[in-house]
Amino acid sequence: MKYYIGVDIGTTSTKAVLYDQNANVINKFQQGYRLYRNQDGMAEQDPEEIVQAVLQMIHDAAGLTHEDGNQLTSVSFSCANQSLILLDQDHQPISRVMTWADTRARRQAEALKQSSKAKIIYEKTRTPIHPMSPLIKLMWLQETKPDLIKQAAFYADIKSYLFWRLFGQFRIDISIASCTGLMNLTTQNWDSDILEMLEVSVDQLPEIVDSIDQAVGLSPAMADLMGVDAEVPFVYGAFDGALSNLGVGAIQQDTVAITIGTSAAVRVICDHPVIDPHQRLFCYSVNRHLWVIGGPINNGGDVFQWAVEELVEDQIQAKYDVANQLIDQGPAGAHGLLFHPFLGGERAPIWEANARGSFVGLNPLHTRADMLRAVMEGICFNIATVFDAVQAMVGKPKRITATGGFANSKVWRQMLADVLDCPVNVPKSFESGCLGAVVMAMQSLGELSNLADVTSMVGEVEAYLPDEAVADLYQRYLLVFKQVEKQLLPTYAALVELQEDQK
Amino acid sequence: MKYYIGVDIGTTSTKAVLYDQNANVINKFQQGYRLYRNQDGMAEQDPEEIVQAVLQMIHDAAGLTHEDGNQLTSVSFSCANQSLILLDQDHQPISRVMTWADTRARRQAEALKQSSKAKIIYEKTRTPIHPMSPLIKLMWLQETKPDLIKQAAFYADIKSYLFWRLFGQFRIDISIASCTGLMNLTTQNWDSDILEMLEVSVDQLPEIVDSIDQAVGLSPAMADLMGVDAEVPFVYGAFDGALSNLGVGAIQQDTVAITIGTSAAVRVICDHPVIDPHQRLFCYSVNRHLWVIGGPINNGGDVFQWAVEELVEDQIQAKYDVANQLIDQGPAGAHGLLFHPFLGGERAPIWEANARGSFVGLNPLHTRADMLRAVMEGICFNIATVFDAVQAMVGKPKRITATGGFANSKVWRQMLADVLDCPVNVPKSFESGCLGAVVMAMQSLGELSNLADVTSMVGEVEAYLPDEAVADLYQRYLLVFKQVEKQLLPTYAALVELQEDQK
Repeated sequence: MKYYIGVDIGTTSTKAVLYDQNANVINKFQQGYRLYRNQDGMAEQDPEEIVQAVLQMIHDAAGLTHEDGNQLTSVSFSCANQSLILLDQDHQPISRVMTWADTRARRQAEALKQSSKAKIIYEKTRTPIHPMSPLIKLMWLQETKPDLIKQAAFYADIKSYLFWRLFGQFRIDISIASCTGLMNLTTQNWDSDILEMLEVSVDQLPEIVDSIDQAVGLSPAMADLMGVDAEVPFVYGAFDGALSNLGVGAIQQDTVAITIGTSAAVRVICDHPVIDPHQRLFCYSVNRHLWVIGGPINNGGDVFQWAVEELVEDQIQAKYDVANQLIDQGPAGAHGLLFHPFLGGERAPIWEANARGSFVGLNPLHTRADMLRAVMEGICFNIATVFDAVQAMVGKPKRITATGGFANSKVWRQMLADVLDCPVNVPKSFESGCLGAVVMAMQSLGELSNLADVTSMVGEVEAYLPDEAVADLYQRYLLVFKQVEKQLLPTYAALVELQEDQK
Repeated sequence: MKYYIGVDIGTTSTKAVLYDQNANVINKFQQGYRLYRNQDGMAEQDPEEIVQAVLQMIHDAAGLTHEDGNQLTSVSFSCANQSLILLDQDHQPISRVMTWADTRARRQAEALKQSSKAKIIYEKTRTPIHPMSPLIKLMWLQETKPDLIKQAAFYADIKSYLFWRLFGQFRIDISIASCTGLMNLTTQNWDSDILEMLEVSVDQLPEIVDSIDQAVGLSPAMADLMGVDAEVPFVYGAFDGALSNLGVGAIQQDTVAITIGTSAAVRVICDHPVIDPHQRLFCYSVNRHLWVIGGPINNGGDVFQWAVEELVEDQIQAKYDVANQLIDQGPAGAHGLLFHPFLGGERAPIWEANARGSFVGLNPLHTRADMLRAVMEGICFNIATVFDAVQAMVGKPKRITATGGFANSKVWRQMLADVLDCPVNVPKSFESGCLGAVVMAMQSLGELSNLADVTSMVGEVEAYLPDEAVADLYQRYLLVFKQVEKQLLPTYAALVELQEDQK
């Protein structure tokens, strides 16, 4: 039997899944690590903790492949995008990993956004100007830690650093490169103007390779640590969002992938790069011939969690079941109550760190059940605004493939179909990032001539169709939701300022 | 000993308080009656239930005055304003009492507000155009119940009808008359243009008398029922708000009276009539030589009650104490959370039946305690907007006299002082409507040459001084509160419409 290991290097843990050649999951392994949040906006990882976790997870997953007649065909990678590590001359880390979730570069993002360069940089890179992007993180480091920057010989992301450790080659896949704000999406190379602006030389950055490219020839020490043959090909893979689309079969413009976990995202794969004139969406590379457009949304399941914690009685066990029941019993529209879910600022589509949450339209008959329903609807309305932006770029899709923790709630699945007015498919089981990585490995190995064959690997899905009457009503609520968004943004900023002055 | 009975005819009960000549409360009596709310917006009373309650309460209060050496000097009246009863040729009711709380004439109010007549009518009457006013109620009756209007020979308020029953005279005090939307505040007579517009003749309305005027000569049957001498003078009195100011010693421009019960009100007495160019405030007569300006506020204690019911755990006993503790522990500004208290629409200062409530500015650290604090602050901010409008008319007052159920909460008293940036005095005990009525009786009897002597009758007060740092902060929040008010009014209307379409 042939086996494949798909590795997903996440923000707080690394997973490795062992698949057989029919894409059946044989085994799963997961190891967590710390996300350092010591100061306001910081979100850092220790690079060594991650490397050790990856080695250990591959080691564990590879166990079964040692038996007679079995063969480990490849190891391939999905990875959280937008990380930054500073390396010295010897490619030794001189900083921790600043993750996408690190927002300390907020002021630099704001300043660049207000400048005349903003539009040009967005059009070159298609990466929204935001503290998440390595471009902005570099600007922050230059301003706040000039001594550290002086010591830096190379700039890496966590996966380039990992591959350096494994193979002694300093390379980055095009997908992760396209999320840095430093790559020109048209030339598919580092952008010389942007590098000049940053006073960064191209030699300081990893070489860009295709996502389906392989590295072969592990150092014996590394091969030994992982318990794999030194000649097993390691396929670079891509950033987790792009691979998640592959893993759920959302591989064409007619299928939009929506993930709602702690945060959320809307993504669709295109066969050509796309530009959003309103700068709401990203357009990143999947590989040299495919692109993914969409928007990352901060406020997903964590907002629902906040609402359940604050609005369901403390004593109640199974709070989330109770919340779902209450929501299910209420009417669409929560008796005329609207909720803005931007509790901790928002990325797509408004890209406003000072955004906050609101309940709007309370009347004396509203109960906590209405408030809970409004929260779930508000999260969906926000996703709908990103979905609408995506539709404006690529047309109305035929279906949505939805994954993430929310998929456990039937109420939420149906609500998403109704709010987006589009059928929603929920895969019954999935490790979409790892499966996507394996799909890339199969492409790399020439075992998958047609990407459409992925669909058969995804397995059974549950389908939810929109109720047309409810969908029509939600379209009307959505108009009000968007109107309130415009009205309240300055107010949110004023309240944030007031609160900061009080500290 | 000389005794005085002050009667307060309220919306859901009538109180009678027996005072001695030093304004000590000797005894109190109260009898409730129904407020008929069978259909949306209806709020009616049965006139006979009210007459019987008044007779019984006077009878009970008069008991003590029969002893040797005691004398009942007068009976005087405070009354809920803005009621309307239709009477036939024989002054027999052919309708129930439509109270101020009846909002069925909403559409008529809206239409008149949009017309060119609105400004002229407001300037003549100083009564805001709103379903509360008998002018608008008459328009509603003409449109929706033309047959009933045809049968009506006379139009009365509940007190005019009561005095007709007691004395066979059809008279209205100038204070209640000035709240009808039919009286010209300058001429102090029924306004002929408005009457012409309504096709109502002056003969159909009661004769306007001064608030300190007396009726003497009870029918023997009535005197017998109440157990009082037929020659005891009955002093007409005024509407409850005006008398409440008298009863708490808020008798000059330097003292603003604020009541927060279920709803709330801000009122100040002036020695000249005032006009608010923005039509936010009323200006009514107290008597022929004094006026009271201010605003009635729908959203007071009932909004706090809603919040406590929805946001404090069900199992907790003494919910209100817990809520007050939680609020007391939080910082001013509720960690940057703002609340709009307009749950059931609002009268002053926005006069918008479709207004609703909102929490604005939620972040993930906000708890129910913050939400409770924001609710109490929001109610105070709303009062502050009316208070500001009053200040714009009469200048900055030296103090506020605060009464109503809220006065039981120390947190709330201090918050009111801080939000309004003005010292707040809370009388230790009060029946301000009844005491105000007795003050009018004393004036009528020539026993009170100087109104300022009222201050000595009010008794001990607790004083709360604003904390200047907190007051400054609240002024900044208040600006945001007002800005959000403007922004969200169209949204509230849109949500109300959406909800009504769903019914």
